[in-house]
Parts: sequence; C-alpha cells; structure tokens
Amino acid sequence: MRVEIVAVGTELLLGQIPDTNSQWLGEHLAANGISSHFHQHVGDNHERIVLAFRTALARSDAMIVCGGLGPTQDDITRAALAEVLNVPLVRDEQIVATIRAMFVSRGRTMPDNNLLQADVPLGATIIPQTRGTAPGLVCSVGQKVVYAVPGVPYEMTDMFERAILPDLLARQRLAGETSVITSRVLRTWGASESALAEALGERFDELAGDGRVTIAFLASGIEGIKVRLTARGDDAEHATRLLAGEEVVIRALISEKLGDIIFGADQETMEDAIATRLGRRGVTLAVAESITGGLIASRLVSIAGASKWFRGGVVSYASEVKFDLLKVPRGPVVSPEAAEAMAVGVRSLLSSDIGLSVTGVAGPEEQDGQPAGTVFVGLAMGETVEHVALRLPGDRPRIRAYSAISALDALRRALDRAD
Amino acid sequence: MRVEIVAVGTELLLGQIPDTNSQWLGEHLAANGISSHFHQHVGDNHERIVLAFRTALARSDAMIVCGGLGPTQDDITRAALAEVLNVPLVRDEQIVATIRAMFVSRGRTMPDNNLLQADVPLGATIIPQTRGTAPGLVCSVGQKVVYAVPGVPYEMTDMFERAILPDLLARQRLAGETSVITSRVLRTWGASESALAEALGERFDELAGDGRVTIAFLASGIEGIKVRLTARGDDAEHATRLLAGEEVVIRALISEKLGDIIFGADQETMEDAIATRLGRRGVTLAVAESITGGLIASRLVSIAGASKWFRGGVVSYASEVKFDLLKVPRGPVVSPEAAEAMAVGVRSLLSSDIGLSVTGVAGPEEQDGQPAGTVFVGLAMGETVEHVALRLPGDRPRIRAYSAISALDALRRALDRAD
Repeated sequence: MRVEIVAVGTELLLGQIPDTNSQWLGEHLAANGISSHFHQHVGDNHERIVLAFRTALARSDAMIVCGGLGPTQDDITRAALAEVLNVPLVRDEQIVATIRAMFVSRGRTMPDNNLLQADVPLGATIIPQTRGTAPGLVCSVGQKVVYAVPGVPYEMTDMFERAILPDLLARQRLAGETSVITSRVLRTWGASESALAEALGERFDELAGDGRVTIAFLASGIEGIKVRLTARGDDAEHATRLLAGEEVVIRALISEKLGDIIFGADQETMEDAIATRLGRRGVTLAVAESITGGLIASRLVSIAGASKWFRGGVVSYASEVKFDLLKVPRGPVVSPEAAEAMAVGVRSLLSSDIGLSVTGVAGPEEQDGQPAGTVFVGLAMGETVEHVALRLPGDRPRIRAYSAISALDALRRALDRAD
Repeated sequence: MRVEIVAVGTELLLGQIPDTNSQWLGEHLAANGISSHFHQHVGDNHERIVLAFRTALARSDAMIVCGGLGPTQDDITRAALAEVLNVPLVRDEQIVATIRAMFVSRGRTMPDNNLLQADVPLGATIIPQTRGTAPGLVCSVGQKVVYAVPGVPYEMTDMFERAILPDLLARQRLAGETSVITSRVLRTWGASESALAEALGERFDELAGDGRVTIAFLASGIEGIKVRLTARGDDAEHATRLLAGEEVVIRALISEKLGDIIFGADQETMEDAIATRLGRRGVTLAVAESITGGLIASRLVSIAGASKWFRGGVVSYASEVKFDLLKVPRGPVVSPEAAEAMAVGVRSLLSSDIGLSVTGVAGPEEQDGQPAGTVFVGLAMGETVEHVALRLPGDRPRIRAYSAISALDALRRALDRAD
C-alpha cells in the first residue's frame, strides 16, 4: 500500500518552520511496516491544494493531509477536500456543540470563525478532537482513503495513533499485505561513502535480486556515514531474523575490507561509544583543543552523566596558552610533537587518566607552513603517548567538525585496542 | 514563475533525517522574491523518482532536485533525469579528471564508483563542484528548467547561490516579472516571540493594508528570534528605500518597548557581534564553561581570525577542576559566587583582559538543590566583576544552547555599556 503525506501551509514553503510532521509520520509509518512513498508541501491556496490532492490520489492508495483545518480564512483544507471528493461541505451540529463546550469549559465564548471547523465533506467520518478544536476527517474515495488532521504536532500525533494507524493496518490486512519492515543503522567513521559502497557493492547487487533486504548509505557530516539495512519479513519475527542475519554479513564485510570503522548502531553517537567505553573501564578523560575550540568537550558534555568520566578541558586557542598552561615546548603548534605534549599536559593539569588533544589548521589561511586541513590528534593513555596525523577536506566549519569526530574515533580505537 | 523542490532520499520518507534543504531553499527563494509552490519528497526508487519529476514538470516552471547525486548504487537522480528528459547519460571526461584530482590532492585514489558522478544527461550544463565530488546539473526542458544538486547541505547551498539563484532571477526578468523583493533580518535575543509580536502588532496591521512591506517572526533556537522585513518595490532602488525606511521604524519600536535586544542583522551571528566589539577595543577574552561544556568557545573559534581576540578557555566540568584550576572557593558550584570566581579565575589563568563564565544545571536531574534551567553567567572586565542569573526553559540540549547565547549576549551588553 502506498501512503502519501501532504503537508499544507505557506509557512512550510517559505521555510519559516521545519516540516516535523512529515518526518514524524514517515518514521512512525515505517516502524509499523507501512511505506510512505511520497511527501508533498503545498501552500494555503485552493487551486494548488486541489492539484496536490489529485496528484496524491492518482499515485498513492492513502493520503494523510496535515494542516489547514484551523478556524481562520487561510485554513482551506476542508473546502479543497470537498472539491476533490465532489461532495458538498455540510455543517455538523454535533461538532459545533463540542467546540462550543470546549470554549465554555475555558470560560470563553466561541468566536464565529470556529464554526468553519464544523464544516465536513459529506460522507466523511469524524476523528473526534481531544487536544484542540479541529476534528480530523476520514474520507473514502473508491478503494482509496484520505485522512485529514490538524498541523499542530500534538493534535496530529494523537489522531494518528488513535485513528489513522489502526485504520491503515486494518486496510493493509484486508489487502493481504501482512509484511513487516524493520531496519538497523550501522554508523561508521574512517571510510568514504564510495569506499563503503565499493566494499558492499557485490552484496548490494545480490540483495537487489531478492528485494527482501536493502542497503542504503547516508553521509551525515559529523555523525559519520550511516549504512542502513532494511528487511521486509512476513511477520515481525521473520523481519527481525532476516535483519539480524544480514547485519552479521555486512559487519563482517565492512570489518574485512575497511577495518574497525563501525562505532555504533541506530541512535548511538560517537559520544555514546566513548561514554560506554570510559564508563566500563572506570577511567576519566580530559581534552585539550585548539582547532576544534571546545567542540569535542561540548559533544561529550551533551551526554547526561558525563561527569562520571569527563573531567573537562582546555581550549588552548592562543599559542601562549599551549606553552604556559599545557607546557607544550615552544615551537610550531601544528605538529605531532605539539599534539602529544598537549595531551600529556591536559592530563596532568586536570588530573585525568587519559588526555586527548587536537591541533591543526582550520583555514582559510595556512599556518606554520601547513595547509588548511592538516590536523594532529594526540593521545596520552597509561604509558602510551601517540598521535594520529590527518588531512581533512572542506571549509573551516567542516574541517573543525571532522577533526572533532576523528579525535573521538582515535580514542575509541585506542580504548578497544587496550581492552 | 512556479518553482518546485524535489528532495530525493528514502531517509526522508522514513523520517531518519529532517529535510532541512527544502526549508532552506524555500526561505532563500522567498527572500529573493521567488515562490516555491510545491515541495516533494521521494525515495531512492527509479520509477517513483521519474513520477515525481514528471509531476513537478507538469505543474511548475522550474524544478530544483536535491539529493541522489552521490557515488553509490542508490544515487539514481542522474538516471531518472535522463529518462524524464529522454536523453542518454554520457560520461564527461572533464568531470572524471576533476574528481580524480580531488582525490589525488587528499593523497587517495579515486574509487571506480565515483565515475558514476561524471555521468551527465546529454545536453545538461554543469555546475562545477567546489566542496564535494558531485557536480550539479542544469537541464532545459522547453521553456522549463531543471536544476539538480547534491543533498549535502553545504554543497547544495553553495550551488544554489552560485548558479541556481542567478539563473532563476535572469529567467524571472526575461519573463517580465520585474518587481524586486528585498529583505532584512533583525536578530534579537532576550524577548519572547509573542512579546515581539505584541510590540510590533500595531505596525504589523498598518503594513498589512498596503502590502508593500511585510513583517515575519522566526524563532531560530540559538540563533535567537529573527524579525524579517520584506519589501517589494518597482525596482531595486525603490525596494531598498522602502526597506530602509521601515527598518528605522521597527528598530525604534523594538528599542522603545523591549530595550537593546537586537544584536545583529542578516547573516550576523552573536559571535560576529562579539568579535566586532572585541576587535574594535583591542581586548582579549577567555571563557570558563561548565554547563555549556565548550559550546561558547567553539562558537567563538568558528570566526576566522578569532586568534586576534580569543585566548582560549577552560571547560571546568568536574567541580575539582573549578576549585583547583580556576580557584573557585569550595562550595556549591551553581551559584552567583561560583560564576564570578570562574570568570576571575579563567581571566587570570589565561592572561586575558576579560573573563566570561557559565555555570548551571542542564538537567534532567537537579544539582545543589537547584532545578534544571538555573544558570549563572559571570563576567570579569576591568575592575567590574558581576553576574547574570537566568532561568532557562527546555530540555538538556536546549538549556545548554540557550546558556551559550545568553552568556555571549551578556558580554555584548556589557561591552556596549562600557563604550
């Protein structure tokens, strides 16, 4: 079954607010094994809303409309729907009574504008409102179905869970579609998207033939590159089994061809990976940051409970701070030696078990004769003091962000080696 | 002219990432007087991408496609475009050479997969890549036009500004659409969106009658709340004059009713505002961060040339670091006294002219008997040592982000007072 989401509102087209509704609906449909194949945004314009609705009904089996059910002149979803369904709008006195009672309970009089919210395309089923004044609508169109819900997220999500999802699942069962979709995201750092695609290319092609499991790649900036596995099974148990089996294959392929680049799964970030490892070993960390200027510390502090293993850090932006506070020997500050000295210095200064550092050139200008993108990560852990040299692409913000995740990844690998 | 945005990627349908590209494009098209009338999301499926493209070309004059230009097997925008345009894909050897050179400059060999990115629908014009490996495409279809750009935001925005926007504006002029829209964003911190709406409500209504100048509000998280003024003039000079006149009125209203809350205009961030003021006075800054954990330092370092006025910082996450390194007296660390001591301590430790500090409770749990959202900003400047007490709303990331911008805003106001 193809489901299409149509989000109505000029503010979406103008970019004044993000469309969190379509994202939420897409995620929750997928989690229930229902595919949303198309999303549309359209403004508060009758002709164009009608066009968007007709497009959706032409290519999809079900349409979920969000927005345009409010009480003002620019809320015209009801009228557009009536035109597309070729039925009149009729005023539902039961809805009028309900809305009037909501206002009375708040000690207010219902403005006449709210009467508009009681106008319903003839033949529509009502989804009673519980959180706002606008009811939702369910309209059958031949074998297809249209749902209309308010654009206010907490009204929309309530109606989705209470009415739309059960109805869609019932329709899917009736249509004999009982398959269940489940997915797993593997998060990687250290290989390019194309290198990943090449490593998994053969498997990608094998899977394409069957179609039960699919692979997709998603470059996500400082969140790394994600590899998403999606499995479609006859039931939940089958889907889970397919996915688990494929995950083993893909992990082995990645590990064999690209090494230890998977740092997490699903919602697990690089910070989470670090937090788990440090927590398990019961050791503390301090960071010395130059090029990243606090990015690393800031990501670590984003983890609730970081105080158990994170001591803090020094942002040694000025060279004098490196020399005076971190005891880096005077000389070029973008060098392997400086990175190592920073790691040792911050470990000592903040009395932590591990010291991690980054120094480099963010650009646009070069520094100490090194081009933008030259980065050194220093690590002091037990008796070991070492560095990793990197050459990172991109502009200033990108180089800084990549430096941060690269440094955390270097620490992750070192902790795993030490286990 | 009707412009339609088509964002390609199964991850959008599954709700795994928000579609920030359509929002950004919608905002920037509108700011230049171009309407985006429809947006679509479609997954990485050839048949459905073709359907989405044909739908867009049926109802719009220009289509901007984002995504699906990567080097992997699921990047199929090029092939779908070729089908819709009814032309073959041809390999462009110039693009091959460019991509190969990009890999060589990073000391790596180009994987064969990247060759896919050199396949171009016959007749397309290339938008040269400057930030990633995928070039953009411009394809004419009769009187209509298709632009295809990568989904990676910083590649997309670059190509939009460099190639798409100038081309769309030229087409609009050719079509005889000569009115010019210009806009100005005033960035504020320290008043709520509804307080701003109330302060400007009367003016808002006056302007609505004429329609030449409009006001919109846009809450933008740690970027503050933006007030956007848009003027439509008969030509550029007329639009600029209308806008300048209105800006004077609005600035005066805001200043009169809400005080000194405007920190910048257009692209000017709070960091820029700080950089300008510190640079002008020739003084240096050091920061001590607890709750923000490096966020403030990181935002300051994002400014190229920050080394002229930024010494660095200490992320004193563990209380011991506050006591030992910053010489904060032992006791509760979320207090006005601790904030002031941190500011004095970091100024002394890093030998800067000014010390700025933040301590607070990010939550979810309370600390030292203080609820989440309790934040103290400390400031040491010349003979003055002072603090600002804040109670911030939201969850952990929100409280941390608001703390960072609030601290910088406190510094901005103090610098202006001292002038």
